[in-house]
Amino acid sequence: MEDFKALRMEGEDLILLDQRLLPVREEDFICRTVDDVTYAIRDMVVRGAPAIGGTAAYGVYFAAKEAKGDEALFNKLCAKLKGARPTAVNLAWAVDRVARKAMGCAFDLPTIKAEADAIVSEDIAMNLEIGRIGSTLVPPRATILTHCNTGALATCGWGTALGVIKSAWDEDKDIFVYADETRPRLQGARLTAWELVKAGIPSALIPDSAAATLIRDGKIDLVVLGADRIAANGDVANKLGTFALSVICKHYGVPFYSAAPTTTIDFDCPTGAGIPIEERDREEVTHVGSVQVAPDEIGVYNPSFDVTPHQNITGIITEMGVIREPYAMNLAMLRQKLGR
Amino acid sequence: MEDFKALRMEGEDLILLDQRLLPVREEDFICRTVDDVTYAIRDMVVRGAPAIGGTAAYGVYFAAKEAKGDEALFNKLCAKLKGARPTAVNLAWAVDRVARKAMGCAFDLPTIKAEADAIVSEDIAMNLEIGRIGSTLVPPRATILTHCNTGALATCGWGTALGVIKSAWDEDKDIFVYADETRPRLQGARLTAWELVKAGIPSALIPDSAAATLIRDGKIDLVVLGADRIAANGDVANKLGTFALSVICKHYGVPFYSAAPTTTIDFDCPTGAGIPIEERDREEVTHVGSVQVAPDEIGVYNPSFDVTPHQNITGIITEMGVIREPYAMNLAMLRQKLGR
Repeated sequence: MEDFKALRMEGEDLILLDQRLLPVREEDFICRTVDDVTYAIRDMVVRGAPAIGGTAAYGVYFAAKEAKGDEALFNKLCAKLKGARPTAVNLAWAVDRVARKAMGCAFDLPTIKAEADAIVSEDIAMNLEIGRIGSTLVPPRATILTHCNTGALATCGWGTALGVIKSAWDEDKDIFVYADETRPRLQGARLTAWELVKAGIPSALIPDSAAATLIRDGKIDLVVLGADRIAANGDVANKLGTFALSVICKHYGVPFYSAAPTTTIDFDCPTGAGIPIEERDREEVTHVGSVQVAPDEIGVYNPSFDVTPHQNITGIITEMGVIREPYAMNLAMLRQKLGR
Repeated sequence: MEDFKALRMEGEDLILLDQRLLPVREEDFICRTVDDVTYAIRDMVVRGAPAIGGTAAYGVYFAAKEAKGDEALFNKLCAKLKGARPTAVNLAWAVDRVARKAMGCAFDLPTIKAEADAIVSEDIAMNLEIGRIGSTLVPPRATILTHCNTGALATCGWGTALGVIKSAWDEDKDIFVYADETRPRLQGARLTAWELVKAGIPSALIPDSAAATLIRDGKIDLVVLGADRIAANGDVANKLGTFALSVICKHYGVPFYSAAPTTTIDFDCPTGAGIPIEERDREEVTHVGSVQVAPDEIGVYNPSFDVTPHQNITGIITEMGVIREPYAMNLAMLRQKLGR
């Protein structure tokens, strides 16, 4: 396992590794209230669907502490947590799960905290299983392209798509990784590159637009990336740029995998058209840190995610196995198995 | 015409608008020597294939002044200018043309300067004609997507693809423009957005990866972008990101045009495979201005251009008309007409 954590509890403090400052500075961000947690999720101190889920789980613990048994206030605080970011389904899923437990145990704080702990340890276990299963899809000496950050920083530990890559590397597969920088927030440059360097995996960072030529020229054996929400028909909402990659891969016959725990599947969402797509601030595009890169007067359109139709996806790697076409049927069977 | 110039002569000084500082500062960069001009082209004080051509034309004038009739030295200085950037063909074309004139007039400085002036005024005339012709392809109320910067800043005046957009706007077509920010150098954010704001054209800046969903969702009526070199079969080398856009447009049936003067056509280059693709410094990807966005230890692959196959191109808009399939035949006929 890696020697850092996106999130961890120390006593009554939730400690987040402040991902806004990476790779230049490694600093902790301490959360003690629902407001702290909501801010941290919204401002992307922590990001990545599973890491947001784990963080929000402890947010519900703080909500229970703050509500002191006032159920209306507790529900309001939980709603605030769920509203921090709209696209990732793990956030709502984790809040609902811990909130249900809180209701069921008459707001017994140790029980609630244990439920949040369980979400974290289950996520790590799921990621390791995703890594084990996904690694079987990686040929020896494969060159893998990934997008955004889906590593230990995006989860409670290990990672999803980057977890697959790390598992393949740990199995001594002689791989090479291209990491999309992932504009506008540059999670690939800031975070994936940082994790790849830490793990010692041979790799290169590229501008997002460089991927298409690499794919066309046969230099990419497979693409593995994450998911923020998966609809019941297999459509995948993921970081902006995923959809374009999927079209290029389909056109040139390159395998295209999404890796995510089953908590990312929204069985109640029939298709990708039903997934809300978060639009974020213009400053993410007009500024990089303190550097202004566009005129003040220009309009900006900055959707944070896009939806990839299931027809473009070779397989969805979960801890329960690789789901393939026909997605609607196979996901319905998975839902039964999960009892959701 | 716009109230600024990418390049202009004042007395014996070549004045460039320093495009590295836009949109935050408007400052001139003064060139008086071949070394100044070579540096300005290489470091992208001036960029855009036609603007590089005009700049290099005056560079040959400086070469003639410095060589003082020494033909070997003159040739060496011209070779230095041509080596400043490898992909754009206008650079070599302009240097060769002015150098030929210099040889033919026994290094008569006023004659050489007049030849450089002619390149500039011909480029402006070609751009206005490209704008006039290209505008006929723009339906009323069209939403147009463009990539990189192809405006007055990229040329000796008016622009190529952005010239088409400006001409359509001047003809009172009620258009809307999406401008790709164009990583890594952000010419769309820094320069195209600046020109769009100056021209008052309704527009929005987007991360490059946002284009694909807009195209899929029918929100783009046509794509118009430039070219740095066009091969004899119609393959187009242009700013990184062009190829990916072309695949998405082809997949969803959206018209995809390249606009460029015929000086951009390299009739001696049979296909796009023969076009050298410049790789630029890792710092363009790892840093934005003074802000570091990737770890020091990560590898970087940073090709500045990509090649779009002619099969993906609806038409090439030149001052001689719109060239369409079959490109090889139609370009061969154009070559005859141009006497090149």
